[in-house]
Amino acid sequence: MKNNDWLERFGLSAGRLPKGHRNTIADVAGVIVGHATLAEGKTQTGVTAVIPAPGSPFQNKLIAASHVINGFGKTAGLVQIDELGTLETPILLTNTLSVGDAWRALSQAMIESEPSIGGAAGTVNPLVCECNDGFLNDIRAQAVTPELARQALAAAAPDFALGAVGAGRGMSCYQFKGGVGSASRLVTAGARTYTLGALALSNFGEMEDFTLNGQLTGAEAKKILAAEQLHEQGSCIVLIATDAPMTARQLKRLCKRSSAGITRTGSIIGNGSGEIAVAFSTAQRIPIDATGELALRSVSDVHANLFFRAVIESTHEAILTSMLAAETVTGFQGHRRVSLADLAGRVPGLPAPRC
Amino acid sequence: MKNNDWLERFGLSAGRLPKGHRNTIADVAGVIVGHATLAEGKTQTGVTAVIPAPGSPFQNKLIAASHVINGFGKTAGLVQIDELGTLETPILLTNTLSVGDAWRALSQAMIESEPSIGGAAGTVNPLVCECNDGFLNDIRAQAVTPELARQALAAAAPDFALGAVGAGRGMSCYQFKGGVGSASRLVTAGARTYTLGALALSNFGEMEDFTLNGQLTGAEAKKILAAEQLHEQGSCIVLIATDAPMTARQLKRLCKRSSAGITRTGSIIGNGSGEIAVAFSTAQRIPIDATGELALRSVSDVHANLFFRAVIESTHEAILTSMLAAETVTGFQGHRRVSLADLAGRVPGLPAPRC
Amino acid sequence: MKNNDWLERFGLSAGRLPKGHRNTIADVAGVIVGHATLAEGKTQTGVTAVIPAPGSPFQNKLIAASHVINGFGKTAGLVQIDELGTLETPILLTNTLSVGDAWRALSQAMIESEPSIGGAAGTVNPLVCECNDGFLNDIRAQAVTPELARQALAAAAPDFALGAVGAGRGMSCYQFKGGVGSASRLVTAGARTYTLGALALSNFGEMEDFTLNGQLTGAEAKKILAAEQLHEQGSCIVLIATDAPMTARQLKRLCKRSSAGITRTGSIIGNGSGEIAVAFSTAQRIPIDATGELALRSVSDVHANLFFRAVIESTHEAILTSMLAAETVTGFQGHRRVSLADLAGRVPGLPAPRC
Amino acid sequence: MKNNDWLERFGLSAGRLPKGHRNTIADVAGVIVGHATLAEGKTQTGVTAVIPAPGSPFQNKLIAASHVINGFGKTAGLVQIDELGTLETPILLTNTLSVGDAWRALSQAMIESEPSIGGAAGTVNPLVCECNDGFLNDIRAQAVTPELARQALAAAAPDFALGAVGAGRGMSCYQFKGGVGSASRLVTAGARTYTLGALALSNFGEMEDFTLNGQLTGAEAKKILAAEQLHEQGSCIVLIATDAPMTARQLKRLCKRSSAGITRTGSIIGNGSGEIAVAFSTAQRIPIDATGELALRSVSDVHANLFFRAVIESTHEAILTSMLAAETVTGFQGHRRVSLADLAGRVPGLPAPRC
Repeated sequence: MKNNDWLERFGLSAGRLPKGHRNTIADVAGVIVGHATLAEGKTQTGVTAVIPAPGSPFQNKLIAASHVINGFGKTAGLVQIDELGTLETPILLTNTLSVGDAWRALSQAMIESEPSIGGAAGTVNPLVCECNDGFLNDIRAQAVTPELARQALAAAAPDFALGAVGAGRGMSCYQFKGGVGSASRLVTAGARTYTLGALALSNFGEMEDFTLNGQLTGAEAKKILAAEQLHEQGSCIVLIATDAPMTARQLKRLCKRSSAGITRTGSIIGNGSGEIAVAFSTAQRIPIDATGELALRSVSDVHANLFFRAVIESTHEAILTSMLAAETVTGFQGHRRVSLADLAGRVPGLPAPRC
Repeated sequence: MKNNDWLERFGLSAGRLPKGHRNTIADVAGVIVGHATLAEGKTQTGVTAVIPAPGSPFQNKLIAASHVINGFGKTAGLVQIDELGTLETPILLTNTLSVGDAWRALSQAMIESEPSIGGAAGTVNPLVCECNDGFLNDIRAQAVTPELARQALAAAAPDFALGAVGAGRGMSCYQFKGGVGSASRLVTAGARTYTLGALALSNFGEMEDFTLNGQLTGAEAKKILAAEQLHEQGSCIVLIATDAPMTARQLKRLCKRSSAGITRTGSIIGNGSGEIAVAFSTAQRIPIDATGELALRSVSDVHANLFFRAVIESTHEAILTSMLAAETVTGFQGHRRVSLADLAGRVPGLPAPRC
Repeated sequence: MKNNDWLERFGLSAGRLPKGHRNTIADVAGVIVGHATLAEGKTQTGVTAVIPAPGSPFQNKLIAASHVINGFGKTAGLVQIDELGTLETPILLTNTLSVGDAWRALSQAMIESEPSIGGAAGTVNPLVCECNDGFLNDIRAQAVTPELARQALAAAAPDFALGAVGAGRGMSCYQFKGGVGSASRLVTAGARTYTLGALALSNFGEMEDFTLNGQLTGAEAKKILAAEQLHEQGSCIVLIATDAPMTARQLKRLCKRSSAGITRTGSIIGNGSGEIAVAFSTAQRIPIDATGELALRSVSDVHANLFFRAVIESTHEAILTSMLAAETVTGFQGHRRVSLADLAGRVPGLPAPRC
Repeated sequence: MKNNDWLERFGLSAGRLPKGHRNTIADVAGVIVGHATLAEGKTQTGVTAVIPAPGSPFQNKLIAASHVINGFGKTAGLVQIDELGTLETPILLTNTLSVGDAWRALSQAMIESEPSIGGAAGTVNPLVCECNDGFLNDIRAQAVTPELARQALAAAAPDFALGAVGAGRGMSCYQFKGGVGSASRLVTAGARTYTLGALALSNFGEMEDFTLNGQLTGAEAKKILAAEQLHEQGSCIVLIATDAPMTARQLKRLCKRSSAGITRTGSIIGNGSGEIAVAFSTAQRIPIDATGELALRSVSDVHANLFFRAVIESTHEAILTSMLAAETVTGFQGHRRVSLADLAGRVPGLPAPRC
């Protein structure tokens, strides 16, 4: 089995484009991911760090964009990305009530590594995204510390775990166990082949809506499991990386397509769900001291559909993988989320694993 | 002199609408403001807290909206305000690199006072706005603690200081001393008279652009003062409160007009300036457990121009007041910002004070 | 069979909410629809008019909102709807290059019926939406006249045809015949039951992506049919009506969910597709001469998910119906689009009709 | 006197940047402008055409962006510009109720010159902007024909008239005569000098707000003139051209600054005013058949403030010029708008002309 091809293991597919080598966002060269996880009793939470490129993203910024699919969320850092079209820090994912601590950690890490911050270079724009893991995790305890966030940053590597780890530890998806998922696609546009990868933090949806392989898997699973009737308060963060050169306008269009990847799993983009996408390109960097005219490359919009398809497929797969890779977790107040994988062979749409 | 009428003191005006009793945002009944200030040597910073209404804004939300005039800023909390059209916490203002700590403080204060947060009520959306005070303040030291932010919240009252206090302590405006300013206007629409108030955290602009009373005050002041040739990295936060009933759509239109209040002082809305406006109405509250149909009131758009004018005039005046009320401050690396008031009678547009 | 229940006829479903009596947008009381069709040789086009409510929408405006899913389109009239949150004319749908003539017709019809337009009441904001029917229709001929648009307005009635009629005459959907579709859902929120209906003008998608009943219907159909390899230049217009009282903010959120209804049919929201949604509420009207405070009702956001689901299901069904109800059409340059219904029983996902 | 330097003639200024040779938008090489005017009795209206560059804008598109300052307007064509970041036609300006006819004319002109429209190249996105000239013009008569619009296109040249001509014929600004104005600025960024020009169609504001040279010119003029107490229903269109290479994101930021140019004349951006800005760069073109990677240039954001200042100054001056260059006009129902120039020497802020 290809690394991390959780769909193949269960005989599933998500589209028709070829997958990258690792089948994660780290197939985009230079992107690395790290987790720091708290998993003890009522504390089921953590931090996931995505480092978008080698070298300093502050000294050499990445072109980036964001899109708010549904804004019932607390992600910090989007205002500047929208204005300037650049990403200048790693990205931290964590639980909703820990945005402040993660922001503190990320700003501190940037200050330490960049002596010009606060002086000639102005300030820095940390990007911190979140979902509410309050069902499995005692979120009121705000257990994530700045130190934990630093650990996630330090742990970043091209190979990283998926499922109930890092920020994904306490997340729920369609009332199954959710978490961190990732996938990638290869796009051949003109004479070149590019890589696009997605990483999803999944925490949304009602079981009855969950659709797999075109079948109403969730509705059947609900007959087996006692899905708690929680008011839906989920969220979904989708990060998209590509090595194709794109402008912020083009990357924003990629972000918008992640919505279709999410809804392919059955979601109605619920009222209480903070669904936010951020995309960045590693193809070229904007030096902080650039003056005069910059020479930029940009893939022709003629090829846009290929990239749209890659976003949809890799987002779709990343969400499914976040569920299939996640183990069953019991946490806060004895709440429990069952792994979707545990139902393999027992519900329509999800065959027993091949191996 | 009317409370806080700094313009009258210097024989200046900002429009033609009548002013409220205090001539601050606190003329909107229930709005209170508090400061916590750090002013020692290289540490010249602080926190300003705006409590938008009596009782719990979380249990009974306020209708609200925001607008990003220029997004080179780090304000956290706008995503949810834009989606839901409600404000559910006090608002904290502080320096750019202290957003994380202020967020931490505000989330903690909300958790303590609201047992349902993290559980049935979902999470909470703290609103933290910022400007970069790194010229006068050692911003890299991140001196603002969660405790300081709590002090600002605890200090909130209808009467509050203006100028170089709280979050305004280290701010610069047109290379003069900036800070916290406020003003209010009365609007008579149909048979009723409403109050609208603005609070500005001013930290933007080049001296040469500063315009007062229709004259090029800044250009002349520059001949007197040695304005440092810093690359412009400022910001401006404008908070708007009104007791007029408005929808989020209407409040967003108010936010947009704050831009005209800012530019009446000569600004070009510089590249590096994070200029953000947030408006809320105290006229009616949305209970967190509201079901069925809500009965809402909304001022007819026929009267919109009166409110637009009130926003522009009170924003304009709030910025001027933030400067006139501020004392000269010397801070980080011996940097110094002179009070505009110190130039009264020496530059065109600014007569000597009357009293 | 319930009126217009094309899914039931083919043993298909689109969600779980109950349908309205007619299963069209006209289930929202007062909404009526009319077509004027040109179907001769290379001219395969027309106009569809949606009259949103009884009486003058100009004198008593409807609360409304729009959302651009993908903006490769020429719809005219959205700027003002976004600013004011109101709809003040009927809505015309036509082919892309006839926007001007439809605009002319609609403005003229409004001028004739409203003597105050151009004088005390200011001007009027016609809403004209479009898709490119240039595959089946000689679109360069601009065959739609203002008179034809007036005929569509005059033909409006609660019962109206679906499929290859009016603006839908020349449209293609997933390289099958597309056109006009409609569906409705009932939403019980609190003590009341509301109706929400969608009308879609479908003109997008590659056959290979078409998904029906969870199956890759399009990919199989492509083996049977010779789908032309046209560069995708489609579009999709979705109109949403409801009798639930909503603010413009809430209606905008409905518009956004129409995207999920579209993508449930397999779409990737292609680059060349102008996908635009407009929603309006018939529950209350804003008199043009309203002054003072308006009393408005608004369904609590607690019920938002029910309405989101209704939008998704009715949009999904409207698109499928636009295809199933459409006959096979041959037009410009002999181009031909086969009715999806003709494939019933021959492709996966689409059984033979029951009757 | 420099061509078209109306400010110099009256001893006025609008900022400090150097002006271009013609001091109009046509200083951006390749931009040409034409008018067609109807000025007889109650018919005081017309069309102004801006051709953005030599050669076909459809075959070789210009990078472009737009921004809606206030959306009470009917401009058609913005949806696609926002999505694709390109302009592909000339721009027509006319009265509000003639958008349809201008759209018809522009689409037809494009069809005639571009055989691929409607076929392989898809459709075309005409850009038609408008203001309501209903005070001076019998706007209900819809006197602008497609032929008149074609005349304006045919008349385009580098030298063109300003004031009460073309689309500006019937416009009012601050209850004085408004119309078409233009101005330009030179921007030296790094080693290069760029040109930026603005063209304004001015039709907004209450006399009492009009500010000139920092003085309340309008309030004093009102004592001389009998300003009609019309409910404000104005608008302002600002077109910005530059030969500096910019992305759509950068051009959008330019558009936003036009608002400060408008408000420098005293405006409150009234409720009824449709204020819309469109910016385009002539520096590079996107061929319609571009594939693979495009090589684009983009001025570093480090220089953004210079361009922002150029937009504000040239918009400010364009509006003043639209007034100073316009003759007094009497039209519909004997309504009359006095030329601001007629008041020179009689109101504060406006000295008698030098020559």
